[in-house]
Amino acid sequence: MKIVIVGGVAGGASAATRARRINPLAEITILEKGRYISFANCGLPYHVGGEIETREKLLVATPELFWRRFRVAVKTEHEVTKIDRNGRCVHAVDLKSDSELSFPYDRLILSTGSEPNKPVANTEWPVNVSHLWTLPDMDRIIESLRSRNVRKAVVVGGGFVGLEVVEQLHRLGIEVSLVERDKQILAPHDALFARIIENHLREKGVGLKLGADLQDFTIENGLATAAVLSDGSTIETDLIVVGAGVRPRTALAVEAGLTIGQCGGVTVNSVMQTSDPNIYAVGDMVELVHGVLNEPVRIPLAGPANRAGRIAGEHAARGEATAMGKVLGTAIVRVFDLTAACTGLNEKLLAARKIPFKSAIIQAASHAGYFPGAQSMQLKIVYSPGDGKLLGAQAVGGEGVDKRIDVIATAIHFGATVWQLAELDLAYAPPYGSAKDPVHMAAFAACNDLSQFPNLVAPDSVLNGMQIVDVRTAKERAALPLPNAIAIEIDDFPERWQELDRSKPTVVVCHSGKRAHIGACWLRGQGFRDVSNLTGGMAIRSLISKP
Amino acid sequence: MKIVIVGGVAGGASAATRARRINPLAEITILEKGRYISFANCGLPYHVGGEIETREKLLVATPELFWRRFRVAVKTEHEVTKIDRNGRCVHAVDLKSDSELSFPYDRLILSTGSEPNKPVANTEWPVNVSHLWTLPDMDRIIESLRSRNVRKAVVVGGGFVGLEVVEQLHRLGIEVSLVERDKQILAPHDALFARIIENHLREKGVGLKLGADLQDFTIENGLATAAVLSDGSTIETDLIVVGAGVRPRTALAVEAGLTIGQCGGVTVNSVMQTSDPNIYAVGDMVELVHGVLNEPVRIPLAGPANRAGRIAGEHAARGEATAMGKVLGTAIVRVFDLTAACTGLNEKLLAARKIPFKSAIIQAASHAGYFPGAQSMQLKIVYSPGDGKLLGAQAVGGEGVDKRIDVIATAIHFGATVWQLAELDLAYAPPYGSAKDPVHMAAFAACNDLSQFPNLVAPDSVLNGMQIVDVRTAKERAALPLPNAIAIEIDDFPERWQELDRSKPTVVVCHSGKRAHIGACWLRGQGFRDVSNLTGGMAIRSLISKP
Repeated sequence: MKIVIVGGVAGGASAATRARRINPLAEITILEKGRYISFANCGLPYHVGGEIETREKLLVATPELFWRRFRVAVKTEHEVTKIDRNGRCVHAVDLKSDSELSFPYDRLILSTGSEPNKPVANTEWPVNVSHLWTLPDMDRIIESLRSRNVRKAVVVGGGFVGLEVVEQLHRLGIEVSLVERDKQILAPHDALFARIIENHLREKGVGLKLGADLQDFTIENGLATAAVLSDGSTIETDLIVVGAGVRPRTALAVEAGLTIGQCGGVTVNSVMQTSDPNIYAVGDMVELVHGVLNEPVRIPLAGPANRAGRIAGEHAARGEATAMGKVLGTAIVRVFDLTAACTGLNEKLLAARKIPFKSAIIQAASHAGYFPGAQSMQLKIVYSPGDGKLLGAQAVGGEGVDKRIDVIATAIHFGATVWQLAELDLAYAPPYGSAKDPVHMAAFAACNDLSQFPNLVAPDSVLNGMQIVDVRTAKERAALPLPNAIAIEIDDFPERWQELDRSKPTVVVCHSGKRAHIGACWLRGQGFRDVSNLTGGMAIRSLISKP
Repeated sequence: MKIVIVGGVAGGASAATRARRINPLAEITILEKGRYISFANCGLPYHVGGEIETREKLLVATPELFWRRFRVAVKTEHEVTKIDRNGRCVHAVDLKSDSELSFPYDRLILSTGSEPNKPVANTEWPVNVSHLWTLPDMDRIIESLRSRNVRKAVVVGGGFVGLEVVEQLHRLGIEVSLVERDKQILAPHDALFARIIENHLREKGVGLKLGADLQDFTIENGLATAAVLSDGSTIETDLIVVGAGVRPRTALAVEAGLTIGQCGGVTVNSVMQTSDPNIYAVGDMVELVHGVLNEPVRIPLAGPANRAGRIAGEHAARGEATAMGKVLGTAIVRVFDLTAACTGLNEKLLAARKIPFKSAIIQAASHAGYFPGAQSMQLKIVYSPGDGKLLGAQAVGGEGVDKRIDVIATAIHFGATVWQLAELDLAYAPPYGSAKDPVHMAAFAACNDLSQFPNLVAPDSVLNGMQIVDVRTAKERAALPLPNAIAIEIDDFPERWQELDRSKPTVVVCHSGKRAHIGACWLRGQGFRDVSNLTGGMAIRSLISKP
């Protein structure tokens, strides 16, 4: 049996090694357009900044190793030009010799990935303007850093790669500006959570330009010297790195007549077969089923690509495999001292789809507050107001953000409700968590909301016309003022609550929502009919930017 | 409505604050025998060693705060002597004045916890022999450290508290010996995993005495000067700290005629009501339903106690509450540079119950190997050979052990199989994990086992009579020899596998099981009928101690 794999990074490499394990007799060939296979593309930004010290670390596997250990033939610099479905072969060009070759297959696995979106596509990019998508991209950027005096850099795109590049260039002492077309960075997060990261970038001295796109660059002596933005402004720079999203590489699949889905990716079934059962596709180029939406989505991330490759390789090698799991878009990025992670659906998408949702936001310590080194995190869970089913989660903070998002992603995988989330039996000792973990606290807040004990209102709610009760201390109020509020500190509540007007819709506010919950419960129990708690408290509400 | 709570630590404190939130009109009283309520008992070892610097940090809440903020009356040094179920009141003694009082209740919540087992109970303990269960215990130990020149200490009991005390006394420069009655420390772990921690303790210079119990102590001038062990040996010491397990404090409940379960804890329903529906019980004194066994167990840990307290408080205050989740015994402990965590059932218990199980053990890096700072972990998942259902997991290693155990605990909560575990969509970026997370790798190993690709054999299997194939390098073989094995390095496998005898039952071995998997798959695919992979590899097998 002949298995041909087009593309030897992530999913393609996984498919090859899995197919070999399942079937030592198959003839397995990887055709890779580039010079490298199975390189650590997620590590590229970190070698630019020197945090990963040696380039060799990024070469996870070599063609030699693939042959020696797995008897997988790897042909690099081989570009596949056409799939002949009837003849069951692919045509390729050996880019080194420019010769044409064809490779017959019994099973074909496509893993051609995606390619970065290219702004200013009509101008040839100077050598100091680059994506960071491949090893040669990285080499070009590092060459710029070595050969020229790079004092200023512009990064275009505030997604995962863009943010990692910002951090790493800053690490080198370069003055970095980040340009993002959207009004917020980190599209998978909702605006207020993204703002925590935006503020952190500003604290670190990163210039932030939101709502502006790269439109052109000024070129002098063959080098870009300034980025020209869509709002008419320019930023002087010695280096421009573009991370403005990716689009799937589907040309081969389209030309071969394989079915393409609504999101522009190749349509596959649960074992990664395309509309031609002898052809599989995996990675950034395909659509996978979303675990909450239950419909195909494109999620260009390494985790699903690797898992899908493994499944395609197994199915190609023996005609059966367990089904690919649904995806949740679970993702994480480190941005200086903070971590931002998310899973499932965010509020923006739910609102656009008109899917009803509510959110609970809590602030919690990464581990027991009395144990040294606890770091603060903001954690939001989004859930269905009808049945309490978890729809998504976002977290921003220090240590332990990754753990909480992974736990919630696991719960969502099993269709958990917020009540079930509250019941999880998680590991607790002071260095690692709290007896009531942040995951529990978020679930408790959501359960309270759904049971009206009391209900939560969104951090950006209009409070005009409501009786606003601020239970914070005088010092907290001075630091982050809340206009038009009646101040009754939480410890004075049992004595002073009667000053409030029970006929008015009332919202109770504190810094994180924790003390406000005590106050709001008190009022509810005293017969106030319309009482709510501002979820996330002033910590989140204060992030709403003034117009 | 009058709610009386007996015991103001952990579950009792949670019950009080939850009841107050639900019902501001209830009269809530906590009767606490000790001088403190709601103190951080999990933090005690860390103040002994000074990692938690100030004692005040341990006082999570005070009686004053409970009254001011929650209008919960706290009566410390009040020992409840009797529950009068017919009269619906409890009788108590005010230990300060020795006066007798009675407190009527509509709902009574018992949270009397557990008490430490006391070896050498017939001798009065000198001041330098102590448990570490309460604040006064801690104060006594700290007083010993301050007032005497403590150079040597003996810790009795290699459970969570014992290990934390060992670490913290060692931190102070004290020469510590750990005495454990069982043949292994860390009872919730299986022996080979516990051995990783035992070896780590020895590396740190901790004296380890397994299979011996504290039988007596030598007393001179009113102080213990040596621990006398059951094996006849003695250890000179300046301080003895005993953490030899706990037993539930059920005397009040027993005397009141409440139903006691098979495990010696008070029987409760899903909202924590005892056999008397007006009386609730929570915390170490009760039995909860185990999520895998589906039968009552006693799990004296802070997490379930706090969650149960919240449920009891809510139900007492309004007659309804969501049910308590099942428990898995998820637990974690830091021991110097290592973390040991577990969830669900271990092999010892499964074997004793004659429940069929298999295990997959992997060694993995906490995050992408090419990113600096990755730490190694050993992760074991235990599953049902029939339906692949997860039964439990154990992990020992550095960073990220807590995350993996929490993810697996969450999966077990939802009745996951190993196939489902392999499909989880977890957050990946180089500083946090790998595209194939350790959780996935363990699941893959188990799936391979159940699909016979190839099957796994336990690390302590008898290999006599099998064809043993060692695919490690010469250097690895020299460091950890495997007798009677045929050495074929994995990269030579495609050329040299034909040297092997296909008629023999064959086991392939490497350091962690990863390369062995490649070799075993190869042989299986070449028609070897009986091939297996030694799970955990030599890293785990080498831990088997010689007789």
